[in-house]
Amino acid sequence: MNDKLSTKNMVNENGESLRSVTVVGLGNMGQALAAAFLAAGHPVTVWNRSAGKGDRLVGNGAVRAETAAEAVTASSVIVVCLSTYEVVRSTFMPLETNLAGRIIVNLTTGTPDEARRMSAWAEERGIDYLDGAIMAIPPMIGRPEALILYGGRKELFETHQPVLQLLGGNTIYLSEDPGVALLHDLAMLTMMYGAWYSYFHAHALLRTANISAKEFLPYTSNWLQHLIVPMLTSTDSARRLDEGDYATDISNMTVNKLGLDNIVKSSQELGVPADWLLPIQSVADRMVFKGYGNDGFDRVFESMTSLLSLDDNPADVLHHEASVKRD
Amino acid sequence: MNDKLSTKNMVNENGESLRSVTVVGLGNMGQALAAAFLAAGHPVTVWNRSAGKGDRLVGNGAVRAETAAEAVTASSVIVVCLSTYEVVRSTFMPLETNLAGRIIVNLTTGTPDEARRMSAWAEERGIDYLDGAIMAIPPMIGRPEALILYGGRKELFETHQPVLQLLGGNTIYLSEDPGVALLHDLAMLTMMYGAWYSYFHAHALLRTANISAKEFLPYTSNWLQHLIVPMLTSTDSARRLDEGDYATDISNMTVNKLGLDNIVKSSQELGVPADWLLPIQSVADRMVFKGYGNDGFDRVFESMTSLLSLDDNPADVLHHEASVKRD
Repeated sequence: MNDKLSTKNMVNENGESLRSVTVVGLGNMGQALAAAFLAAGHPVTVWNRSAGKGDRLVGNGAVRAETAAEAVTASSVIVVCLSTYEVVRSTFMPLETNLAGRIIVNLTTGTPDEARRMSAWAEERGIDYLDGAIMAIPPMIGRPEALILYGGRKELFETHQPVLQLLGGNTIYLSEDPGVALLHDLAMLTMMYGAWYSYFHAHALLRTANISAKEFLPYTSNWLQHLIVPMLTSTDSARRLDEGDYATDISNMTVNKLGLDNIVKSSQELGVPADWLLPIQSVADRMVFKGYGNDGFDRVFESMTSLLSLDDNPADVLHHEASVKRD
Repeated sequence: MNDKLSTKNMVNENGESLRSVTVVGLGNMGQALAAAFLAAGHPVTVWNRSAGKGDRLVGNGAVRAETAAEAVTASSVIVVCLSTYEVVRSTFMPLETNLAGRIIVNLTTGTPDEARRMSAWAEERGIDYLDGAIMAIPPMIGRPEALILYGGRKELFETHQPVLQLLGGNTIYLSEDPGVALLHDLAMLTMMYGAWYSYFHAHALLRTANISAKEFLPYTSNWLQHLIVPMLTSTDSARRLDEGDYATDISNMTVNKLGLDNIVKSSQELGVPADWLLPIQSVADRMVFKGYGNDGFDRVFESMTSLLSLDDNPADVLHHEASVKRD
């Protein structure tokens, strides 16, 4: 059974025929995506696992599909924004014949590996597939500054770019690797959680002396703008990681180890949980022990990438890892 | 034995008499401190535990003391910058009679508790004491932008402010609590390590797909400037922590828990150590389990401060902790 592709098209004010789009998953983000397509005049079909979502979209002209199969067959472009890849798999894997010849644009958050496996599954069944990551919150969708990253076959991205561009002005194709968008997503989220959680920890320390976040705000701002941001955004910091050049004459590993020791010790003295800092302290300890005390703190990067190099490809690394585990 | 206070003073170009200053500890920072006093025309005595440091200072007019006792008796103001408080204690505790009537300005990095105990020790012996934290690197010492924070008796700070001001234009008195400068120091360092280590983690993830730090730099910059910095420096973020108001309609704990799950899972899939993230993931898990899934991620702050409130004082908290441990 190979359903005919939908030919439901609309004609916009310039006389162009606008392709029908299906949006699967109507959380806050899915609704924002569907609203952006509707606003541009596209016919939109929507579907959500649980009922009661998307009433406003239907009020604005979207068609509600009764089943996932109906949603898939309504359009040639299926935009997906579900909670996890597990839900993506359980929703679409039973529909492979309905999907053949269509494109899944998967904007669900997950891991690069999940994206790569989903892409391989689709390609094997003649289903086109792009995997994207939305680096924006729902109210930003459709605006020029909204950053959305894509990986997958370049010709697919180019074919569908006019439609994808409706979701964010900053719509960027990265590479043929379908995992690359989520890898960027996770890299940015990791930076966010590190900065955010340590900000809470800092304020928990301050609270032990009754110093409020409001009182500390000038220090937070100054420190971020004048130390942290310049340190993390300098071309030299990037070059050091890329070249593995950790020489320093400002603040070496030994000094940073003492700093971490003081943070951990005083957090413990003051009753603020330091558990997340212990692995970081331990890496600095090991680096000093191994004789890297005069190098910069950025040598800890080596401890995260000992199995990786810029010249390895992911397949080699997985192979290497597997052989290490076997030994 | 109570040595006479040194009366070695110099007269500067305005005819003012400049007080002699002793600097103990001649690491990079200690040398920068001594150089700033020398540059302002003060008589400076220097001392370092191990020999061979400070030759340039002596060449520029500093007097090298042969012993710690000689260093202490040479000036009424003793500026200290040693590696740890343990070294501070072992250096000064045997010299309590030499120190009586003088002031120790301790700029050594340590914990707030160590500063408070050192201050109490000094006060009991009639030794004046201020505890400071240098939020700058050695080349910044003496410049207008160098931030140096102080805690301790206010009248002591006011008396010595003209001399302390020579070390940094941004010299700030915080409070009577001698631990408060190091508390600020540790809070800022904690933010630095969280942001820095997560930046390395992000780049270790990217390296698994051969994406260099140079290629990722535009994303790093954009993300810091447009998301992380505004999030951590908004008055509303500070207000939320101070008021314990964690309501959100943008990104709730459940969504953030899924984000952390994805980071941990894909780090593990890609061979990047996620150990430092596990305690953070676990806090988010517990928050969702306890029914806070619809609150903002900043509710994790509560998990760090469950024994603390803005109205408790540190002594109460320590007492509370001790009684919890006894139970």
